[in-house]
Amino acid sequence: MGGAGFRPDAAVPRAGVVYLVGAGPGAADLLTLRAYRLLRGAGVVVHDRLVSAEILALAPADALRIDVGKSPARHCLPQAGINALLVRLAREGRDVVRLKGGDPFVFGRGGEELAALSAAGIACEVVPGVTAALACAAQAGIPLTYRGVARAVTLVTGHTRGGELDIDFDAFSRPGVTLAVYMGCATLPRLRAGLLAHGLSRDTPAALVERGGTARQRTLRGTLETVVDAAPAWVTDGPVLALVGAAVGLATPDLAHAVAAAG
Amino acid sequence: MGGAGFRPDAAVPRAGVVYLVGAGPGAADLLTLRAYRLLRGAGVVVHDRLVSAEILALAPADALRIDVGKSPARHCLPQAGINALLVRLAREGRDVVRLKGGDPFVFGRGGEELAALSAAGIACEVVPGVTAALACAAQAGIPLTYRGVARAVTLVTGHTRGGELDIDFDAFSRPGVTLAVYMGCATLPRLRAGLLAHGLSRDTPAALVERGGTARQRTLRGTLETVVDAAPAWVTDGPVLALVGAAVGLATPDLAHAVAAAG
Repeated sequence: MGGAGFRPDAAVPRAGVVYLVGAGPGAADLLTLRAYRLLRGAGVVVHDRLVSAEILALAPADALRIDVGKSPARHCLPQAGINALLVRLAREGRDVVRLKGGDPFVFGRGGEELAALSAAGIACEVVPGVTAALACAAQAGIPLTYRGVARAVTLVTGHTRGGELDIDFDAFSRPGVTLAVYMGCATLPRLRAGLLAHGLSRDTPAALVERGGTARQRTLRGTLETVVDAAPAWVTDGPVLALVGAAVGLATPDLAHAVAAAG
Repeated sequence: MGGAGFRPDAAVPRAGVVYLVGAGPGAADLLTLRAYRLLRGAGVVVHDRLVSAEILALAPADALRIDVGKSPARHCLPQAGINALLVRLAREGRDVVRLKGGDPFVFGRGGEELAALSAAGIACEVVPGVTAALACAAQAGIPLTYRGVARAVTLVTGHTRGGELDIDFDAFSRPGVTLAVYMGCATLPRLRAGLLAHGLSRDTPAALVERGGTARQRTLRGTLETVVDAAPAWVTDGPVLALVGAAVGLATPDLAHAVAAAG
């Protein structure tokens, strides 16, 4: 609607497109080709704290990098602030690569950003990524599903509410489902207690993975009982992925060794 | 152990390495960089029927391509036969790229292949991939998790056993969990009946995605009631991904339109 005569002399810039891009688990070569190409051509990159330096280095040297994972006071920018930032950048006519660890729609709050952008009339494209559970499992040789053992996998966050672990333990304490919990180490005893109270056995195979999907991945294998007992001394820095379920017991313990020996 | 003097004149070839590689949902640019590089350098590619021609074309022209998704009689090679093939190729000294749709450890039977290779002493590396649910959701603008709405996502296959859908409906009929079911269209009514019988509402938001993660992806949105009713007329070819849960209702319906308009 409206011919050229209605346009102001200084044309209003075309609004930019925001790409909500999954950066995968950390290793740069676990980016998808689509994510890699967007990042290599990016003028503006808005990223979380969890996106690795190795990946950020792929953006052009003169790209504007905005870290919304911490402010100068080391507090995160609130989600509403991130949403507003993305809208503002797009309205300035900039295409934005919004980089999120893992996959944008698995615990990444990508849905909230997409809703805000959509409400503002900003075009948006979502690029999926390898979520941490898949990368941890692959590198550790731990199958998430296995015929006759586990035909489902549940990805869940281990957030607390009022000091309690806010998880539907009844739903997740199922022998035929592999549970992948993105969590902090401090809540592991509550995770175990909840699963045991809802019927899982102490002997259920389990593993903890730290720095998953990077070259520095570490894995602790055992049972629900033993890995939680061992965790305080084992964990070095930051969050872990906990894998629980019968399929976890089908892991190939010496996978990493085998590959190293063949390399 | 054993010095050079113990080696036979004609050296036994070094055993090859088998790479269990997730090919992602179908679009070539949703391969990871790691998968792409392995494929570009592959001498032997063993692949499933679901791996797209676009992706297979990335292997070198003279690479040996073995389709284990169908035999001349259009039957799949049994899993034991695939395992034996991978072991044999590696023992001949070949490095093998074993390409699987999606992620190797999510319904890909990668665990069985890894176990067989490990038992045979063959070195193996697993490369994760973007599983179909993540790709479908991203492209359709459907969040899988959403703060305050869904804090978990369950990936499950909709196989039948003795004519019944073999799913733990009690575990999966939970309002705070997004359910992603990899299934055939024919079992949709049984999926709905099971979920309703275990407490989900007919009005639970739901979507069906066909040809997920490719340029030809189609999405049908509605409720558990409406999408299953509409499915027979809507589905054109092959399996669908069914997404069920409150978060599915937070989709941005005109995402594809918005991106097209901005393009």
